[in-house]
Amino acid sequence: MTDALRGLDEERLEDLVLGAGVLGAGGGGNPYHGRLTLLPYLRAGRCPPVVAPEEVPDDALVASVGGMGAPTIGLERLPRGDEELVALRALEAHLGRTVDYLIPAEIGGSNAVAPFVTAAQAGLPVIDADGMGRAFPELQHCTFTIYGVPCTPAAIVDIRHHTALFTRVDDPVSLERLARALTVQMGGAAGFAFPVMRGADMKRTAVRGTLSLAAAVGAAVREARRRHADPIAALLHVTGGQALFHGKLHDVERRFEGGFARGRLTLEGLEESRDERLEIELQNEYLIARRGGEVVASVPDLLCLVDRLTAEPVTTEIARYGLRVLVLGIPAPRLLRTPEALRFVGPRAFGYDVDYRPLPGVYGADR
Amino acid sequence: MTDALRGLDEERLEDLVLGAGVLGAGGGGNPYHGRLTLLPYLRAGRCPPVVAPEEVPDDALVASVGGMGAPTIGLERLPRGDEELVALRALEAHLGRTVDYLIPAEIGGSNAVAPFVTAAQAGLPVIDADGMGRAFPELQHCTFTIYGVPCTPAAIVDIRHHTALFTRVDDPVSLERLARALTVQMGGAAGFAFPVMRGADMKRTAVRGTLSLAAAVGAAVREARRRHADPIAALLHVTGGQALFHGKLHDVERRFEGGFARGRLTLEGLEESRDERLEIELQNEYLIARRGGEVVASVPDLLCLVDRLTAEPVTTEIARYGLRVLVLGIPAPRLLRTPEALRFVGPRAFGYDVDYRPLPGVYGADR
Repeated sequence: MTDALRGLDEERLEDLVLGAGVLGAGGGGNPYHGRLTLLPYLRAGRCPPVVAPEEVPDDALVASVGGMGAPTIGLERLPRGDEELVALRALEAHLGRTVDYLIPAEIGGSNAVAPFVTAAQAGLPVIDADGMGRAFPELQHCTFTIYGVPCTPAAIVDIRHHTALFTRVDDPVSLERLARALTVQMGGAAGFAFPVMRGADMKRTAVRGTLSLAAAVGAAVREARRRHADPIAALLHVTGGQALFHGKLHDVERRFEGGFARGRLTLEGLEESRDERLEIELQNEYLIARRGGEVVASVPDLLCLVDRLTAEPVTTEIARYGLRVLVLGIPAPRLLRTPEALRFVGPRAFGYDVDYRPLPGVYGADR
Repeated sequence: MTDALRGLDEERLEDLVLGAGVLGAGGGGNPYHGRLTLLPYLRAGRCPPVVAPEEVPDDALVASVGGMGAPTIGLERLPRGDEELVALRALEAHLGRTVDYLIPAEIGGSNAVAPFVTAAQAGLPVIDADGMGRAFPELQHCTFTIYGVPCTPAAIVDIRHHTALFTRVDDPVSLERLARALTVQMGGAAGFAFPVMRGADMKRTAVRGTLSLAAAVGAAVREARRRHADPIAALLHVTGGQALFHGKLHDVERRFEGGFARGRLTLEGLEESRDERLEIELQNEYLIARRGGEVVASVPDLLCLVDRLTAEPVTTEIARYGLRVLVLGIPAPRLLRTPEALRFVGPRAFGYDVDYRPLPGVYGADR
């Protein structure tokens, strides 16, 4: 599928952004600013090349870059636009060598676009893969570290270019705690560069083909809209997902706590879901959906809210009273469904005392 | 005065510890653990040499090391003992060269002893000077950065050797905010190494002769006790201080907030202070003393509480109901009384809307 992205142009960037909004499972942050930053590069024909994971040499150096913080902050404060580049340079200075490839940490929202911005600034290719196959709120939810890539060195940079380099932290849960505390002090949003890994480790640990998947989701929705067909059916076909609930956002409780957007949505059923209620809890991303106390879907499977008519994603920071949405469930990537991964990304890792019951089907990029 | 310290032995270490307890102005942390860590080095004849600031070559590389956190944490959790050494090594790796001399950041409590421990471990000399001439709660209260030494690179290391290196932070107030947030996540206490400066900058910015002053305070008290003379009179003679109030600790309000011990003491007058009350506010250190709403003394001058009989310092973490103490005021070092310094260490910098009214006299090491 990578071919779909080889020549990223404005239309494909829009596709990627829409798809990343869906795969972000409510989170990943608003990609509007990243898209604006990237456009001049595209227009100047300087779009970073996208390569398939299998094209990356085993001994190449790969780093992940993106933004850390709560999506709600991204609505209110513009980033500077080169935080990730400065973080990458800090990593490189520490390593004494340059990085060869960039890879998204998560395919959700702004963090699917951020590596393209940094890659355009640094003249590097981007790998068609990521470390989640979706978006997640915390650093330890990343397949790179779940499958053994060390979490340091890691760099965090704020809007003033204040730079912190973690040269040794033993585990990603500790790094999450330390880096999150810094991010809060940095105004709730920062650019990061980490982890650094060899091509061989990237190939072993990354969720592959996810940039292509996001672009394909966006393209399918765009094409369906153009043909006046059902964009949600097209979306579900490409992602492998299903519709779980049709309803109106009735109650939105959202707060900024410990560096995260946390809260709960209540939906009142419409049409086929009439007389039912769905509750969704969130931490940057939608985590778990319950109908009458019964779990309908949970992490690591993807919960996405989309506008009933347009299939436009309704992320956690824009969810508000009165929106009519479909709640979609998309099966998690294979790499998130292993016992090793569920220790970090299963419902219990988020404090829910329930077993993970996988949604049927196969994640789009795993087919 | 440096000669008094050239051959640091167990007795002189005890003198230094007592003097650092006085000059710590209530803070600086408990030196008990640092003293225990240092003793085997002294007994093995491996005491770090102490050099006068003027002996340090202009182009030598000097770094400050010590502990960051609230004194109350030091009572409850043992440090590992080599956090500062690991922080120093992280700085050196970043700089690509080794440091030649260590200097205390503050002459208060454990941070007067910490550089000796690291110096013994690393085989380095310690400079007879520091960056405050007392103890202060926050990083920006240091003469090195007040007079222009850049605050980064700076390293922070926790008990698990988790290491954060700030490679660029523009001002010490920002570094304080970021490093304090990390320290809180690291359990409320961490070892630091920063700033790094040339010998020439150290000579321009350091408060000189303060290790010798601390040792001289301790020696004077010890000698007075031995001769059954008044140890407090001896202390005041050496430091240049005066007695401000004689009283009993009546009320102690102390909490751990934002990484600091904060609170307020109320003293009821005894003898010459009978029928009076003194209120002292603290943030790790004693900051301001008021009698009937009138400011008696404030930062940057040193407020010290000592046991009425023994002259043993009563620091903020051990202050408790019923202790009979003398409140002493010691004039601040000359380098803290300039307009530049008062922006950072005057009463307004701590949120008190009063002008600084210097205590009469001259700080012991400035004579």
